[in-house]
Amino acid sequence: MSDGGRSDGAVRPKDPPNRRAFLVGATSILGLTAGHLLLSPRFSHAQEVSDDPTKVPGALASEYGFRSRFEQSQRLTKPQRSRTPLQDLHGIITPSALHFERHHNGVPFIDPARHRLLVHGLVGHPLIFTMDELKRFPSISRIAFVECSGNSGKEWKGSKGKTVQEIHGLTSTSEWTGVRLATVLQEAHLKPEATWMLAEGSDAAAMTRSIPLDRVMDEALLCYAQNGEPIRPEQGYPLRLLLPGWEGNTCIKWLRRLKLVSSPLMTREETSKYTDLMPDGTARQFTFEMEAKSVITSPSAGQHVKAKGFVEIRGLAWSGRGQIEHVEVSVDGGTTWQDAELQNPILPKCHTRFRFAWQWDGQEAILQSRCTDETGYQQPTLQALIKVRGTNSYYHNNAIQTWKIDEDGQVRNVQV
Amino acid sequence: MSDGGRSDGAVRPKDPPNRRAFLVGATSILGLTAGHLLLSPRFSHAQEVSDDPTKVPGALASEYGFRSRFEQSQRLTKPQRSRTPLQDLHGIITPSALHFERHHNGVPFIDPARHRLLVHGLVGHPLIFTMDELKRFPSISRIAFVECSGNSGKEWKGSKGKTVQEIHGLTSTSEWTGVRLATVLQEAHLKPEATWMLAEGSDAAAMTRSIPLDRVMDEALLCYAQNGEPIRPEQGYPLRLLLPGWEGNTCIKWLRRLKLVSSPLMTREETSKYTDLMPDGTARQFTFEMEAKSVITSPSAGQHVKAKGFVEIRGLAWSGRGQIEHVEVSVDGGTTWQDAELQNPILPKCHTRFRFAWQWDGQEAILQSRCTDETGYQQPTLQALIKVRGTNSYYHNNAIQTWKIDEDGQVRNVQV
Repeated sequence: MSDGGRSDGAVRPKDPPNRRAFLVGATSILGLTAGHLLLSPRFSHAQEVSDDPTKVPGALASEYGFRSRFEQSQRLTKPQRSRTPLQDLHGIITPSALHFERHHNGVPFIDPARHRLLVHGLVGHPLIFTMDELKRFPSISRIAFVECSGNSGKEWKGSKGKTVQEIHGLTSTSEWTGVRLATVLQEAHLKPEATWMLAEGSDAAAMTRSIPLDRVMDEALLCYAQNGEPIRPEQGYPLRLLLPGWEGNTCIKWLRRLKLVSSPLMTREETSKYTDLMPDGTARQFTFEMEAKSVITSPSAGQHVKAKGFVEIRGLAWSGRGQIEHVEVSVDGGTTWQDAELQNPILPKCHTRFRFAWQWDGQEAILQSRCTDETGYQQPTLQALIKVRGTNSYYHNNAIQTWKIDEDGQVRNVQV
Repeated sequence: MSDGGRSDGAVRPKDPPNRRAFLVGATSILGLTAGHLLLSPRFSHAQEVSDDPTKVPGALASEYGFRSRFEQSQRLTKPQRSRTPLQDLHGIITPSALHFERHHNGVPFIDPARHRLLVHGLVGHPLIFTMDELKRFPSISRIAFVECSGNSGKEWKGSKGKTVQEIHGLTSTSEWTGVRLATVLQEAHLKPEATWMLAEGSDAAAMTRSIPLDRVMDEALLCYAQNGEPIRPEQGYPLRLLLPGWEGNTCIKWLRRLKLVSSPLMTREETSKYTDLMPDGTARQFTFEMEAKSVITSPSAGQHVKAKGFVEIRGLAWSGRGQIEHVEVSVDGGTTWQDAELQNPILPKCHTRFRFAWQWDGQEAILQSRCTDETGYQQPTLQALIKVRGTNSYYHNNAIQTWKIDEDGQVRNVQV
């Protein structure tokens, strides 16, 4: 495990690839024989697969389920981030266990009974909320993506050999539930001069961002649940800010404080970081909305198309400005485009699954997707982005992604 | 653990309520001291909560996440079933780990590389599919509920003291992905005389049901994914039949065989079981669609309303015949009704979240919800159901549920 003994309060099982590997690993750690381990009910599932499962009574019901041991898809981790395996996913919901992570000093371990949210500054009635108090308010749910604005950043200069997970894995979709920010601010008697809000996290980075109130009041949520359950530790347990469609960094996790102010506070994360350096040396600041983007997740780099004939091209599209209107797919590097099918439900500020039925003739092919959102904005080529933005910036890259299929069926990342 | 050493191939962690309880438990099983266990990285999360999480670096990123150790919601298990904790859930997606279970001889442990689907009988071209072959077909995703037709069955005769989980916990909602049954049958050259299909599971009950083809061709899916990931073992890994809106028992899990036939095969599960004995001694057979139903999940039996004043009444509604059109709530035992708010997205054959803003005056109150689906059908009272069905039957109870709030805020199950 990679956490060096630090704790976020989650118990993290490793599902071993097979019994042998698991027993060897466990034995070397605990200095026990396999025989000892087999006595523990924790390890009672290390049984062999039967030749005919209908001849062997199966496992009885369990309190909290887990995936099959044959399934090993996982996030790609660095100490302060992990990437969602988009190539392995189906539909639009990202399993909470595989939702990407980005933190700046680890995932804190928070007791929800001791957690508080302070609302102060330009309010008539400063308040401190417990989690129970926040849960008593009118609640709301919505399915929405969260994307790190650093997602796809390495593509500004090209990244040969990278997979869709490595390049684009900092985006995920969940059903979020919480209370509207507007409800909580109303309780605190928001003053008219309060136009910005500082949101602060309870992590060891004490992450802070300044948020312009008028642009978020309609949709901002203080979320305590994700995909039906309490929010996961690495997603902000027990409370996070959700600003649908905005860069993930503004959706402050482990939220402990909202200070109402009249101008942005110019924190590190909106000056030194999360700004876009332009060719003329100036920097764009407060680029909140994540622009429309799409990516083919299958076939994608690292995968292998086994045979010519029917191939379903599958992918995801999303826009921080609303619904995806349509997605087009090209198999000739952008020379010609055809409409992909969109899967219902098509929801605003949410991953949308697209599919395209393709007959592969076994020749080299250059796959691309491009989406258009409900504002009419069309996902640009990298060249078009660079023309405006140059190559100094890292964040906010929503360019068209290109995969090349070789004659042998191997798929790789290229730039055209 | 309750599985007696049998295996479904899932590795099931237990997340301990606190470090002490966990170490005591683990120690007594393995005969080790706590000191030994602390050497293992598997247990590195047993750290105390800090007084100020911003002063302690948090846990680093992880390959596959888990919920906070403070969260302990779980399925209520019997050997062959487990019930979803509806009272604890938010939104419409049921976490896969908490999706209800119903099996008849345990959850089989299946290697997907060795799993096959046989399609035979009245087809021109009998076929055996591997999982890889099924995944190459055009795919489709949809969010849908699955409900056991035995759900709420104990309410025919009343069940004082039971919770919403105990009474109604055999329904859950997931995003399912797979290939259309119609696609697979087309590959096998379905013959015109094939009007029914026997679906058979690969579990130790070899569960079998007869399915009338003309009623399922539009929507039936052979699913290999649930909430983005491969389907969970207890939900049919690696392949299940999904007949949206139909009783769960027909959605054969661990699907290994489809035999095309010209009449139902009258299996045990559609003759002795899953039929409804009427007052005149005859039995209704093949009651496939789950009729419209709703239930208030909060406040619900076993919960305690802490204070008078604002209470958000929250619940779920669903119909096997399409979309929920509206949900009404009564706080006076059905004398008067008011419209609840429905949460988007409102999807056909899917749990729909409803909410009702209520001011509780601290007096006794009798809470009910009733829903109407897009066919115009309204959820009936238990009396109305009994008038038609008598009290001999167990399955297919979709009556209005009543909760009573006492003056002290205690909530309990009653029948009115």
